[in-house]
Amino acid sequence: MKEINGGVCAPKGFKAGGIACGIKASSKKKDLALIYSEKPCTASAMFTTNKVKAASILVTQEHISGHVLQAIIANSGNANACTGEPGIQAARKMANLAAKVCGIDPRHVAVASTGVIGVPLSVGVIEKNIKALGESLRADDDGHTAALEAIMTTDLRRKEGALEVAIDGKAVHIGAMIKGSGMIHPNMATMLCFITTDAAISPVELEASLSCAVRRTFNRLTVDGDTSTNDVVIIMANGEAGNAPICAGTRSFEIFYQALETLCIKLTRATARDGEGATKLLTVTVSGALNENAAEIMAKAVASSSLVKAACFGADANWGRILCAMGYSGANFLPAEVDISFASGEEEVFVCRAGASVPFQEKDAKKILSREEIEIRIIAGKGLGQATAWGCDLTYDYVKINGDYRS
Amino acid sequence: MKEINGGVCAPKGFKAGGIACGIKASSKKKDLALIYSEKPCTASAMFTTNKVKAASILVTQEHISGHVLQAIIANSGNANACTGEPGIQAARKMANLAAKVCGIDPRHVAVASTGVIGVPLSVGVIEKNIKALGESLRADDDGHTAALEAIMTTDLRRKEGALEVAIDGKAVHIGAMIKGSGMIHPNMATMLCFITTDAAISPVELEASLSCAVRRTFNRLTVDGDTSTNDVVIIMANGEAGNAPICAGTRSFEIFYQALETLCIKLTRATARDGEGATKLLTVTVSGALNENAAEIMAKAVASSSLVKAACFGADANWGRILCAMGYSGANFLPAEVDISFASGEEEVFVCRAGASVPFQEKDAKKILSREEIEIRIIAGKGLGQATAWGCDLTYDYVKINGDYRS
Repeated sequence: MKEINGGVCAPKGFKAGGIACGIKASSKKKDLALIYSEKPCTASAMFTTNKVKAASILVTQEHISGHVLQAIIANSGNANACTGEPGIQAARKMANLAAKVCGIDPRHVAVASTGVIGVPLSVGVIEKNIKALGESLRADDDGHTAALEAIMTTDLRRKEGALEVAIDGKAVHIGAMIKGSGMIHPNMATMLCFITTDAAISPVELEASLSCAVRRTFNRLTVDGDTSTNDVVIIMANGEAGNAPICAGTRSFEIFYQALETLCIKLTRATARDGEGATKLLTVTVSGALNENAAEIMAKAVASSSLVKAACFGADANWGRILCAMGYSGANFLPAEVDISFASGEEEVFVCRAGASVPFQEKDAKKILSREEIEIRIIAGKGLGQATAWGCDLTYDYVKINGDYRS
Repeated sequence: MKEINGGVCAPKGFKAGGIACGIKASSKKKDLALIYSEKPCTASAMFTTNKVKAASILVTQEHISGHVLQAIIANSGNANACTGEPGIQAARKMANLAAKVCGIDPRHVAVASTGVIGVPLSVGVIEKNIKALGESLRADDDGHTAALEAIMTTDLRRKEGALEVAIDGKAVHIGAMIKGSGMIHPNMATMLCFITTDAAISPVELEASLSCAVRRTFNRLTVDGDTSTNDVVIIMANGEAGNAPICAGTRSFEIFYQALETLCIKLTRATARDGEGATKLLTVTVSGALNENAAEIMAKAVASSSLVKAACFGADANWGRILCAMGYSGANFLPAEVDISFASGEEEVFVCRAGASVPFQEKDAKKILSREEIEIRIIAGKGLGQATAWGCDLTYDYVKINGDYRS
């Protein structure tokens, strides 16, 4: 498995592009993206579980029901959520425009939006600029980067990645981009994530891979406890690598799944690190739980706790808050069996053993908690269940960013 | 029903006191409180649902099993949680010391602690000062105030109240104090709340009254989503008012319950307003839901949303976040039936009707959202279910207070 450049354009046969069409009128930043495959793709997606779903989500759910996609059109600056029937019409129009400029079936286009909720989306500016969007398509890293920049809102960093693996003696590529830094919480926790691959794989295996990987990565990521109306992860596989179609239970499937999960972990960590106002990446690992589910529940509760997050910001080794969060998580465990340590790289300081305080040097703990990457390691008991959750610290800047998002 | 002074000392036959015994060594602030009834009381309590429970909670749960209490001893500065068997011994010792100084049965003493988690509690300083604590008992407002000050930690304001109602032609009094401003979330949401009454009432009616009132008030209060290890609400009724014992299904019960709920609402609002770093009290009312439970779930989700709270801090009418929080709450409703308005006193601005944006003047919304008390009114559909939840804004100061709580 090796890391490569190119993001969603790293797999063969994919192009991407992005332009500023005027949705983010005040900033003149890029706000409209297109990802396109020369051949129709086997596709799968996972959507927000929020009962209030953006118009783009509803349209994309309809379009992906046949498990075939060939393009994704996405805008930032307006979530097209809580916009009623006109919003649905606008999302359909976006799919039609993308289909026309690509010369494909509108039902093979996914639509995604992100930005402010509750404001009508004027599709006129998209129509006026659709030709330019089509012309921006490129099969290289620049195309990928333009598309990625066009879906970013409060994101400070580009979050992307691509991997190459060998399957059947063929080079198979997976590339991805992700957008999101606030309103991020299981499940989903991503806002927008687009993954491309040139692997040949059937819809069943693609769906199984995506749902396992999402459960173990994006769904264990939290920034602020709010689940968005617009979240979607889409994967498109065009088969251009020329491998024999990947089947479950084979070595090929294993390689493909590992590569997909590795890529998703990379994006998850990058998203936590880029959480609104975040200064630190927080990784919470729970082992020794009754099963993976119990481990997951506890890891998420600790990573979500405002008090734990604020203590990490302040580099304060207030471990009682960790045990407290485990206690209200709903998972079954014995407090008297819990060990907790703070770690960063090679350094580790135990602060709790068997559910009670152990002597430790405050300065050693402070040193670890002052790093940009902090790991909270929890041994919850004697079971075999383990899970990792990702989050970030809670800072003044989170409040600042969200105190006046719309202006 | 009329408001009176005196807090927990307003009902006949109760005394209270508080001293600085050295648990909060650095600040010399009061840290040890005692509440005492001259006669044994019918008593009821509700405890934190956190699986990790402080030693004081475990001892009090044991002592209250007979539904009789005569005193409460409480300390601040140390939560005596995650302190193992020595913690349990310390809590038992506190009960014994209080029983000795009051001349009562140790099993009739409730113990409560609040403060930092995971640090052993030295009971020696309590033993050395127990006589002074006994001597501090007074049957007036000063006694109440001293006890209240001795249970406060990051609280900025004294949160207290007392009411007088007529039952059976007798004057019946209820008084209360509450401590808490962070780590506050349903269920429970109070940290420490002590209620006294001179009503004559049986354990069954007392328990029923307390559990209904707590469900409708403290359990709908959120500051930061963290449920503490030490929460407890205790009510003690000594019967000194001389009324005929209150029975369920009678007018007497109705009057008593209304007074108790009114007092708990007052304390709930005061606690939200005094939330760590809070500048605004946030009241979320949901009506038109399928039933009270659905209304409660939605109201709590909105009041708990970091994004809604940050928008209130910034006076930003970002109502999409409200509908979004309702959407992930888990309650059943139709987004297309939802109306939302912001209100404060007589002023009200509708921002969403039938699930979509309605035109409104930003400056009108900003004016309301800049007030110290903001109401978010939600009509969730055509049902009869309604509920209110209370919270506060999320501010820079919340992060500051919790970034370095222990030092």
